[in-house]
Amino acid sequence: MASTRTYGEIPGYPPGTTFRNRSELAKSGVHRPTQGGICGGADGAESIVVSGGYIDDEDYGTEIVYTGQGGNDPGTKRQIADQPLTLGNLGLARSRIEGNPIRVVRGAAGDPDHSPKAGLRYDGLFRVVDHWRDTGKDGFKIWRYRLVALESADPPPPSAAGDLEGQPAQRTPATIQRLARSTAVANGVKHLHSHRCQVCGLQLQTPAGPYAEAAHIRALGRPHNGPDVASNVLCLCPNHHVLFDTGAIYVDQTGIVRHAQTDADLGTLRTVAAHRVDWSQLAYHREHHKP
Amino acid sequence: MASTRTYGEIPGYPPGTTFRNRSELAKSGVHRPTQGGICGGADGAESIVVSGGYIDDEDYGTEIVYTGQGGNDPGTKRQIADQPLTLGNLGLARSRIEGNPIRVVRGAAGDPDHSPKAGLRYDGLFRVVDHWRDTGKDGFKIWRYRLVALESADPPPPSAAGDLEGQPAQRTPATIQRLARSTAVANGVKHLHSHRCQVCGLQLQTPAGPYAEAAHIRALGRPHNGPDVASNVLCLCPNHHVLFDTGAIYVDQTGIVRHAQTDADLGTLRTVAAHRVDWSQLAYHREHHKP
Repeated sequence: MASTRTYGEIPGYPPGTTFRNRSELAKSGVHRPTQGGICGGADGAESIVVSGGYIDDEDYGTEIVYTGQGGNDPGTKRQIADQPLTLGNLGLARSRIEGNPIRVVRGAAGDPDHSPKAGLRYDGLFRVVDHWRDTGKDGFKIWRYRLVALESADPPPPSAAGDLEGQPAQRTPATIQRLARSTAVANGVKHLHSHRCQVCGLQLQTPAGPYAEAAHIRALGRPHNGPDVASNVLCLCPNHHVLFDTGAIYVDQTGIVRHAQTDADLGTLRTVAAHRVDWSQLAYHREHHKP
Repeated sequence: MASTRTYGEIPGYPPGTTFRNRSELAKSGVHRPTQGGICGGADGAESIVVSGGYIDDEDYGTEIVYTGQGGNDPGTKRQIADQPLTLGNLGLARSRIEGNPIRVVRGAAGDPDHSPKAGLRYDGLFRVVDHWRDTGKDGFKIWRYRLVALESADPPPPSAAGDLEGQPAQRTPATIQRLARSTAVANGVKHLHSHRCQVCGLQLQTPAGPYAEAAHIRALGRPHNGPDVASNVLCLCPNHHVLFDTGAIYVDQTGIVRHAQTDADLGTLRTVAAHRVDWSQLAYHREHHKP
């Protein structure tokens, strides 16, 4: 499956390239389907079109909150059913965890500040940095994705990768929107737990001392805008950090860590008296990840 | 211990601030010791002075390859003994794994392209992105650190963090040197291993499918300049990725994964026929991490 995907720039079509219609766009390979906003499947997604087709989309230029596909009435653009995590929706989630770049194309019907006046325009590579379930403006369950512009060319497409054997990786300058996070908050929580994972109790040992990660329960950044405070942070090992952020596990109302799809009991969240966890943020996490 | 450290900007001393001498610099709090290049200990390091005191230092402006402290003759600046991973050296390694920002001060005796003409200059916040053991130009073991400029202000110092309760994190634009990595190489290796960790065999399950990480054996970027090819990549779970990158584990000449400090046998590196691992890169990793 993966071999049929082309991630990254398509030679001959740099960011800024415009297309008169979907057929011309499809022929270029920048976004191959002639219909549908997401080019992707279970193995990953490679491109999207942002064209105002979903009422819950938000476009901030270098940052896009994108709605998954399905469940909408093409005529009214309103949601009329829940969206499943399959096809393109699963593809975007997969590309998030694989780190695949997504080609973003904007259509004239999208946000007026960031979209072309007519036709379609390839706007460069973005990365999916978050995905979660939400209730859309029309009351149905939707999948949402936060994409952030890479603002830089990726390496040459896969066919050229073989030529790089033995060569050092190239450097390219890039401008990013960095979320300023407090290292004091993160380090404070990790110290209170002696760098032990609150899910499994593991304390990873390195020659530079114990290692743990500070995981925000309600994510920082749009549209969650979680607070960067100790009560919104868990101390986790890297493996449980990935499982928590991708919604593979959640913490229930009684403090038991559970497998999201089976509800299997994975043990009680480890706590220490000096670190108060905000239960409303755990409820927020649950609500946005539990299938 | 941690509470005695001040990470990040010191109010009143923005990047570019100059100091006539070490005493004036120490008084400002930007770099507190009046002697010594590293302000740090087992709990972390907060600042360094780059002033040409070590023959193995390399200064590229927004990127610095910095030598640990100790073992040198102040008169000749030559190394005359091995450096231990203690005191400031341990502090820089600790700040790497904690993600603490490091204040970088340059002195007039440093690299002529990037240093002030006289006195000392505070040049902003950097992060330690790598650390490893090396044999210096004079034949003794040294610790080396790669630091990369943050190019942006960090959040207010810890004392102000309490004021942020309930506020979303702030965004600041930042320019970074991004190492272009091939997602094709990374994904190829992960697929060959079905996203199973080559150390422990774990295949992390998420709602978006299995998750693993592509770990470069010989690091990309200065001064290692490892190649971004499949034979220089291992498929690891996040926990073993951290342990491998920090030198907590290594792979011996017979393919056995070992604990770096005790040489304990942690099992044989899992391999698949279609993924050739470059043993010379595993030797490079060993040489630069095994104590």
